[in-house]
Amino acid sequence: MLQIADKKFNSRLFTGTGKFSSSQVMKEAILASESELVTVALKRVDVGDAQDDILRHLNHNRINLLPNTSGVRNAKEAVFAAQLSREALETNWVKLEIHPDPKYLLPDPIETLKAAEELVKLGFVVMPYIHADPVLCKRLEEVGVQCVMPLGAPIGSNKGLRTQEFIEIIIDQSNVPVIVDAGIGAPSHAAFAMELGADAVLVNTAIAVSQNPVAMGIAFKMAVAAGRMAFEAKLAPIVHKKAEASSPLTSFLN
Amino acid sequence: MLQIADKKFNSRLFTGTGKFSSSQVMKEAILASESELVTVALKRVDVGDAQDDILRHLNHNRINLLPNTSGVRNAKEAVFAAQLSREALETNWVKLEIHPDPKYLLPDPIETLKAAEELVKLGFVVMPYIHADPVLCKRLEEVGVQCVMPLGAPIGSNKGLRTQEFIEIIIDQSNVPVIVDAGIGAPSHAAFAMELGADAVLVNTAIAVSQNPVAMGIAFKMAVAAGRMAFEAKLAPIVHKKAEASSPLTSFLN
Amino acid sequence: MLQIADKKFNSRLFTGTGKFSSSQVMKEAILASESELVTVALKRVDVGDAQDDILRHLNHNRINLLPNTSGVRNAKEAVFAAQLSREALETNWVKLEIHPDPKYLLPDPIETLKAAEELVKLGFVVMPYIHADPVLCKRLEEVGVQCVMPLGAPIGSNKGLRTQEFIEIIIDQSNVPVIVDAGIGAPSHAAFAMELGADAVLVNTAIAVSQNPVAMGIAFKMAVAAGRMAFEAKLAPIVHKKAEASSPLTSFLN
Amino acid sequence: MLQIADKKFNSRLFTGTGKFSSSQVMKEAILASESELVTVALKRVDVGDAQDDILRHLNHNRINLLPNTSGVRNAKEAVFAAQLSREALETNWVKLEIHPDPKYLLPDPIETLKAAEELVKLGFVVMPYIHADPVLCKRLEEVGVQCVMPLGAPIGSNKGLRTQEFIEIIIDQSNVPVIVDAGIGAPSHAAFAMELGADAVLVNTAIAVSQNPVAMGIAFKMAVAAGRMAFEAKLAPIVHKKAEASSPLTSFLN
Repeated sequence: MLQIADKKFNSRLFTGTGKFSSSQVMKEAILASESELVTVALKRVDVGDAQDDILRHLNHNRINLLPNTSGVRNAKEAVFAAQLSREALETNWVKLEIHPDPKYLLPDPIETLKAAEELVKLGFVVMPYIHADPVLCKRLEEVGVQCVMPLGAPIGSNKGLRTQEFIEIIIDQSNVPVIVDAGIGAPSHAAFAMELGADAVLVNTAIAVSQNPVAMGIAFKMAVAAGRMAFEAKLAPIVHKKAEASSPLTSFLN
Repeated sequence: MLQIADKKFNSRLFTGTGKFSSSQVMKEAILASESELVTVALKRVDVGDAQDDILRHLNHNRINLLPNTSGVRNAKEAVFAAQLSREALETNWVKLEIHPDPKYLLPDPIETLKAAEELVKLGFVVMPYIHADPVLCKRLEEVGVQCVMPLGAPIGSNKGLRTQEFIEIIIDQSNVPVIVDAGIGAPSHAAFAMELGADAVLVNTAIAVSQNPVAMGIAFKMAVAAGRMAFEAKLAPIVHKKAEASSPLTSFLN
Repeated sequence: MLQIADKKFNSRLFTGTGKFSSSQVMKEAILASESELVTVALKRVDVGDAQDDILRHLNHNRINLLPNTSGVRNAKEAVFAAQLSREALETNWVKLEIHPDPKYLLPDPIETLKAAEELVKLGFVVMPYIHADPVLCKRLEEVGVQCVMPLGAPIGSNKGLRTQEFIEIIIDQSNVPVIVDAGIGAPSHAAFAMELGADAVLVNTAIAVSQNPVAMGIAFKMAVAAGRMAFEAKLAPIVHKKAEASSPLTSFLN
Repeated sequence: MLQIADKKFNSRLFTGTGKFSSSQVMKEAILASESELVTVALKRVDVGDAQDDILRHLNHNRINLLPNTSGVRNAKEAVFAAQLSREALETNWVKLEIHPDPKYLLPDPIETLKAAEELVKLGFVVMPYIHADPVLCKRLEEVGVQCVMPLGAPIGSNKGLRTQEFIEIIIDQSNVPVIVDAGIGAPSHAAFAMELGADAVLVNTAIAVSQNPVAMGIAFKMAVAAGRMAFEAKLAPIVHKKAEASSPLTSFLN
């Protein structure tokens, strides 16, 4: 069973709350997905209002909230945002996202490491969203983050695991859970990440903008479970050039 | 619900019986996969023996047998093999496989069309295994096959859908079910085929040679269901170049 | 040096004549490419007119014309078209193209084999355009074609070698030259085909619709030469998982 | 023409000196490639010896030496190595490579930025080897590096441009030349990088370990020129799903 910090998760599918057509649809899709960790952008929450629409819809005993720092541009802003969210949402978990450029929303490695180091010291459970950079992952691990969240492809692109080579290396050498975040646009992508040995995936756009978010939530749930099960059962190797038959080749008619 | 000829299928995962370590493991994996159509190589069955080991293990009310002509090298041998199997297994269904060359086991388009035409006339439900050749698929449809079974990659290679461009065209223009056969080596591959709109997939090697065929059977079952559900719910499109965020970009801290 | 039938070629880049903005641009691009075999659609040539615009522009001692049967839908039409072109263009070479469906312009394997067999008997040098189907290639070889021309991707798609797995098998087992045709949309694609061991490539759209067809013709010329040279010099193998350094790892500063 | 700092380059192919079977072969291959910028690992040079074997072989008026800091593990070591190399080789150009882990030899983003900033202040022309991280590239540009050298795939893997999505973004937003480094294992890979708009590529392993390094050097020279020329002439776009023909579709025989 996946464990991050002191929490255990039955589901290896983490989800986000952006882009849904309504809070009600969001709630139904997330419940259908059986996701137990759900990111929420603090900037989208009315932190002074206990009746905030998003939070109210996520008020469920299976759902753990994971506030993210989306919108901040550097370490200082990230630390401030994390502290705000800890107070507002009463959780010391934070998904650390720092993207200085709104065009591609790619994460800043320097500021992320700096913020991670400080947030760990401040007692946060830090889950950093980063490029699929194996060296950066090790450095983050060294400063005490509880997992790493390398991207599969540019956020919102739905392109799948375009960083496969590096995700494999990250999984190979990581001592903390590896959660593939961003770019996962189809259940097959999620299954593939799990087959490679990722500990979990985070999916948002692909569920939220589907024509049927509830069905898509279920589809991702099954795909993640399938990929994990295949990883544990071990896949047959890819065979190059000369194929083997599934059936013996002794001819039938002779 | 998938229908081929007069049969309806709850499961879109078809399976094979080759390469398992034992008939008992085969039976358990197939039952776990909930597959309802199972290919069996006639040459591997002792047709005169009602107590044949393979057949005995597949004797289950959910399982329909699909004899294949594996091992034949031309249309004439294929028609003869199909007739033998009809008599022995009491089914007019046949998976038509003609591969003259044992090295790569790739199907022969000319002999397959010839045999298909004759077998349809003889009253068979013909399911031809072929290269992912859209024109050949149309010609087979014209002579009355009940589905087409284009390959994803060389048999036993576990490489996944290397014929994606052509599978997409085949699905686009086919009036009979399209079942992706050969090359599917991981649940993510199966999910991907279903997301493209395939009606079913056939998996054998990937389940049989896994370290845990029963678990792998379940993994494929879930992946196929996930891919189908995603196809019906419609996937979000792949976004090129300029990414969008899952969360609005209005800055948090300002 | 590449030889097909009795002709030797210095260049392994074959070109087409469709889609150019003018016959003058076509001529300049083809001369710049140093291509020595140039396909021309008989239907686009005014066969009764020695002053036909296309033919006049291709009247050059380095250029061999290769009439194609584009537009025909079956073997009978193809044989008739080939005979017409032999008379009109005074060549017994023919690029055999049979695509019954104008939507995707994919070749028909059955009609192509039938026409090839007949055309060989009629004394033609037959160059068949086909799906990347290794069994079909062998059958065509058996009836006496002088080369095979498997497609890389749907014609005009510029997608490159989407049939790599099968092109490799075709090259591995072919006794006649293998010319990759259709889908090659960039010099890198052409180089890749040559690196795999293809004997030549045929490029049309990618040169014709470029903003600068003459420069693109030169680019393809160089890429084809580069790919061939690399094939002969043997590429370094792809190294999986654990990378090696280009430089020894003994630390510099210690 | 490519310009970096105050130097202009006729060739967009940069090369390395590791892994060759002899200094003589290295020299011949590099001259054949017409490369004008050649990296040399300072640790492999006997800096006190003007007759050093490698340097003596690279003593050619077309060749500019580019010392690299390969083997260092952090910014401090890198700065020291760069200063040593400046003195020894009488050049203020330096390829900044910092890889703390010898297993995969991947670059450290944090130390690289730190070292780059310091080396720029010390008057170096800094060419940093980095992950294909668009945000890091912008930050390096801001501290004054003269180009960025993102990797295509793990060094020595010969896998080609596995970071395509990110190289495209880097090229899109960079104000300094973008040189794709590491992973380029075939001329087709080099051509592809250039087609995407890279300003140059650096190739070492693929030339050095070929069975014929001189021929491979020429092959890469041509492929790089071809890719650049295609980029400037603009490639035809990739066409999805519905293909177009190279020839008009009005039927020939009717």
